[in-house]
Amino acid sequence: MHHVDVHMEAEIYGANNRLAEHNAEHFKAHGVRAFDLLGAIGSGKTSFIEQIVPELKKRNLNTAAIAGDVYGDDDFQRIVKTGIPAFNANTGKECHLDAHLVHHALDHMNLDDIDVVFIENVGNMVCPTDFKLGAEKRIVVISTTEGDDVVNKHPMMFRDCQIAVINKVDLAEAVGCNVERMITDIKRYNPEMVIIKTNLRKGEGVAEVADAVLA
Amino acid sequence: MHHVDVHMEAEIYGANNRLAEHNAEHFKAHGVRAFDLLGAIGSGKTSFIEQIVPELKKRNLNTAAIAGDVYGDDDFQRIVKTGIPAFNANTGKECHLDAHLVHHALDHMNLDDIDVVFIENVGNMVCPTDFKLGAEKRIVVISTTEGDDVVNKHPMMFRDCQIAVINKVDLAEAVGCNVERMITDIKRYNPEMVIIKTNLRKGEGVAEVADAVLA
Ligand SMILES: Nc1nc2c(ncn2[C@@H]2O[C@H](COP(=O)(O)OP(=O)(O)OP(=O)(O)O)[C@@H](O)[C@H]2O)c(=O)[nH]1
Ligand SMILES: Nc1nc2c(ncn2[C@@H]2O[C@H](COP(=O)(O)OP(=O)(O)OP(=O)(O)O)[C@@H](O)[C@H]2O)c(=O)[nH]1
Ligand SMILES: [Mg+2]
Ligand SMILES: [Mg+2]
Ligand SMILES: [Zn+2]
Ligand SMILES: [Zn+2]
Repeated sequence: MHHVDVHMEAEIYGANNRLAEHNAEHFKAHGVRAFDLLGAIGSGKTSFIEQIVPELKKRNLNTAAIAGDVYGDDDFQRIVKTGIPAFNANTGKECHLDAHLVHHALDHMNLDDIDVVFIENVGNMVCPTDFKLGAEKRIVVISTTEGDDVVNKHPMMFRDCQIAVINKVDLAEAVGCNVERMITDIKRYNPEMVIIKTNLRKGEGVAEVADAVLA
Repeated sequence: MHHVDVHMEAEIYGANNRLAEHNAEHFKAHGVRAFDLLGAIGSGKTSFIEQIVPELKKRNLNTAAIAGDVYGDDDFQRIVKTGIPAFNANTGKECHLDAHLVHHALDHMNLDDIDVVFIENVGNMVCPTDFKLGAEKRIVVISTTEGDDVVNKHPMMFRDCQIAVINKVDLAEAVGCNVERMITDIKRYNPEMVIIKTNLRKGEGVAEVADAVLA
């Protein structure tokens, strides 16, 4: 959050939280389970969606997704290729989605045959934590290529999420990343966190991720 | 920038710009050349500093650095190990540095024997573009592991910087990144941009980077 007056900050969050609750009711009314996907730029959020869609299909669950990006439709086009309903939410100048943008997406999506919705946020480890969207759980996707200090630097993110996916484990050695340090840091910030290591380019760990999401 | 009233936004930027000009004068008074380091989380900004310090030393130039992070001193400690004067600037809840934080850093740094200062911003491809800090050039460090769509998604960042470092070229194949697409996208947003490919873990491309920075 940028330097704005404390009252204004409280107002922005208050209005957002009310709309997030409204979104949660909207999901509930349609029998849909919604999940936030948060994480740094390029951590593997869209790869997560690409991999989990067929995994959930095997379990007879239909998925939809909202692609949140500052600009463009790169993620949206990749999601469309998986064959699921998708909505492209561009934030313009904002560094995060908010409940209003998600509500707008819901107006454009038919959730009647949908069981699970993933909301991919803008790649950012700071501001999305302040803006609830109405999902039942928040999933943070980090990757080894960000460096093993990425958890320590972002306490709020790890306190705010319930599932942590440590992606690109195949590249840990190439960047000199100590995955054990990441895990230790996550547990220090959030002892309850469910932690799963993945290679989302190859689909490794996806069944475990699906179990954790649906638990 | 989060949803705030247009007048308030103008006020925030106006105040920041005035302080950025003040910082620029401060650098000038000390005969120091200052450069911004922007980029996504883990793109290689601290590695950039680690590599360029000895390169500039060879050219008889003394470097100092400001480490901007939301929380912690991971980067600061790495910079200190290079033997240069450094200052740790934590933003707390903010997703970017501002001119005020940099001004505060300058109060604590002795710039008398310093020739070049690097200001490493928070890993974020959106908000730092709105906040000038007083540097003479802005350098954006991106990496192949973020995916080759990272440029297309962030027009403002590439319009705002003068030098683009494409880092982790050694991992392009492992993530399926088309470096040529990145270059095409950069040139579309900013035909004047100086573009350099690096492996900052190994120091490849650092002499070229130093030439571009000092040019
Ligand atoms: N080697 C390897 N590459 C991966 C893995 N996961 C994702 N990638 C690659 O990393 C790049 C970024 O992945 P994305 O899924 O686009 O990441 P993202 O978090 O959606 O990125 P943004 O939406 O731009 O923030 C792509 O080139 C992927 O192919 C992995 O586990 N291993
Ligand atoms: N293989 C490879 N690894 C690299 C390269 N550049 C940096 N790394 C690794 O990537 C990780 C992140 O690098 P940093 O220099 O910490 O990146 P940063 O931009 O300072 O990260 P933040 O300050 O956290 O946003 C570290 O583990 C580095 O060793 C490169 O060119 N190739
Ligand atoms: Mg994505
Ligand atoms: Mg750094
Ligand atoms: Zn509604
Ligand atoms: Zn922001």
